Amino acid sequence: MKITLQSNHILEFPDKTIDVLAIGEILVDMISTDYDDVNHQFQAYFGGSPANIVMNVNRLGGTAKICAAVGDDRFGDFLTRHLTRQKMDTTLIQQVKQSTSMVVVNKSKGTPLPIFYRGADYRIQLTEELSQALKQAKIVHFSSWPISNLRSRQVIKQALMLAREAGALVCFDPNYHQSLWDDSEDGRAIMKEMIGQVDIIKPSEDDAERLFGPDTPENQIDKCHQLGCRFVIMTLGKEGAIVSDNGEKTYYHTRAEKVVDTTGAGDAFWSGFYCGITQGETVEKALEIGFLTSAYKLNFTGAVVELPHYKTLLECADK
Amino acid sequence: MKITLQSNHILEFPDKTIDVLAIGEILVDMISTDYDDVNHQFQAYFGGSPANIVMNVNRLGGTAKICAAVGDDRFGDFLTRHLTRQKMDTTLIQQVKQSTSMVVVNKSKGTPLPIFYRGADYRIQLTEELSQALKQAKIVHFSSWPISNLRSRQVIKQALMLAREAGALVCFDPNYHQSLWDDSEDGRAIMKEMIGQVDIIKPSEDDAERLFGPDTPENQIDKCHQLGCRFVIMTLGKEGAIVSDNGEKTYYHTRAEKVVDTTGAGDAFWSGFYCGITQGETVEKALEIGFLTSAYKLNFTGAVVELPHYKTLLECADK
Repeated sequence: MKITLQSNHILEFPDKTIDVLAIGEILVDMISTDYDDVNHQFQAYFGGSPANIVMNVNRLGGTAKICAAVGDDRFGDFLTRHLTRQKMDTTLIQQVKQSTSMVVVNKSKGTPLPIFYRGADYRIQLTEELSQALKQAKIVHFSSWPISNLRSRQVIKQALMLAREAGALVCFDPNYHQSLWDDSEDGRAIMKEMIGQVDIIKPSEDDAERLFGPDTPENQIDKCHQLGCRFVIMTLGKEGAIVSDNGEKTYYHTRAEKVVDTTGAGDAFWSGFYCGITQGETVEKALEIGFLTSAYKLNFTGAVVELPHYKTLLECADK
Repeated sequence: MKITLQSNHILEFPDKTIDVLAIGEILVDMISTDYDDVNHQFQAYFGGSPANIVMNVNRLGGTAKICAAVGDDRFGDFLTRHLTRQKMDTTLIQQVKQSTSMVVVNKSKGTPLPIFYRGADYRIQLTEELSQALKQAKIVHFSSWPISNLRSRQVIKQALMLAREAGALVCFDPNYHQSLWDDSEDGRAIMKEMIGQVDIIKPSEDDAERLFGPDTPENQIDKCHQLGCRFVIMTLGKEGAIVSDNGEKTYYHTRAEKVVDTTGAGDAFWSGFYCGITQGETVEKALEIGFLTSAYKLNFTGAVVELPHYKTLLECADK
């Protein structure tokens, strides 16, 4: 589906029943309770950016579903229970034989280096239920995790074909981490190939630098276009964002007034933006909702926070 | 090397400088602090049976080394620091690119089902340092972990050839866990093949049942002999143990008077037995030292406890 910023463009998705279908990882975030891991104690949390987006979209007033694979173990149960408690649909959660994926983060005053434990998330499958959901989805969003392994990447590629055939808008989070990839694979090349196959990407400056090396935001955006992606939202932290529609760039200031915790701010943006797009708002308005959702989230601690209906966000912003 | 229970047999290892070289996993034991994982809090501990044996042997008066692979991450540092603090030799610890292996145990009033996260331990390599150590080792001990993956199994097979050529006694812990194995491999068949290639195994009744199905201890022992292993020590928990030298079975009562914690009791047996064998004691005496070490450990909590010199253990037992 073609998205453009021009002339108050509103996207239409006739007869589709799912606003956002997110495909990717759900996992245990195992976070040290102390800085620099003095006492070796950890707390397990629900994690996974695609699921956070789905939770947010539901809270903002949309209808979203998550498709992910968990292990047939206590962590898989823990994650599924969490989704249920958040009143999320779990019909697309696949239970597989590998251990539930986990990320260990030793909190550090410096840069915390996560330790990745991949397992179940690699084993996501294109089930009949997922195929049906792909036909019903207005937006199909996927993350970099399933791309980083041949097996799950093939599932994603098939899913994208189905999504395209069904007229969905396809969005990709190009969050490249070298350590997620096997040495035998050229992760950067594969990420670039994926960027060329989707409608929208939202790289941060860090994401772009990891993929292309250091450069100006404008040049990084143009590199994404050259790969074949028409619509690029580049976030610049407190400097706001640049939205580029096939090279035509618009600059946005941040809407944040207070920053308590940046965790999940990017996912909050995606969520607001997706809500706007799928609820019949213009692309410009959807971008505004994205920035407002992100600014709202920055006031609170945690990857996912309570959110008002997106219309309430807009009303408060207009005052 | 041939081991037999007959006529006060003493094994000789001329010019060898390492009593025990253990090859296998070291890993993070991530254990829930609460039963049934109510609060999702975990404590990280040093773990890995081969390293526990090495620690014990050193405490009992022997000279032992551990060879294992850890990740180039904070958990790898944590494990290596632990070994150093225990005054253990870390020259055979290999740092590799995969994440440090981990086992998560959600404590349960029922049977706790561990969740395995394999990474670095698969990537153990036959380095020049390991090859040299294999030539110097009186006993080479290895665990089931590296057997459960094609890559590390090939390393172990090469290591065993070198150990045999150099006249070492080769011992194997046949601790079979289905969930350590990839579905594509016939774990039981491979374990049985390994049993046929070593001098000594020490299965528990559970180990034997997982490999052969339920049967009497005597029959299970004979199955091990039929696979090609001459010397089988089958532990029966509080019922003691049966030691079978090529089918000739001797029954041993437990030496334990008090049981506080059974964790690590099997490793304690191996350690005492190895100490006796390598310090010029008879095989019968070495078995006694094994049973005494195990009984001593049962008085205390933890997988590895402070141990006296093995001669002190013998003296106290004689009183």
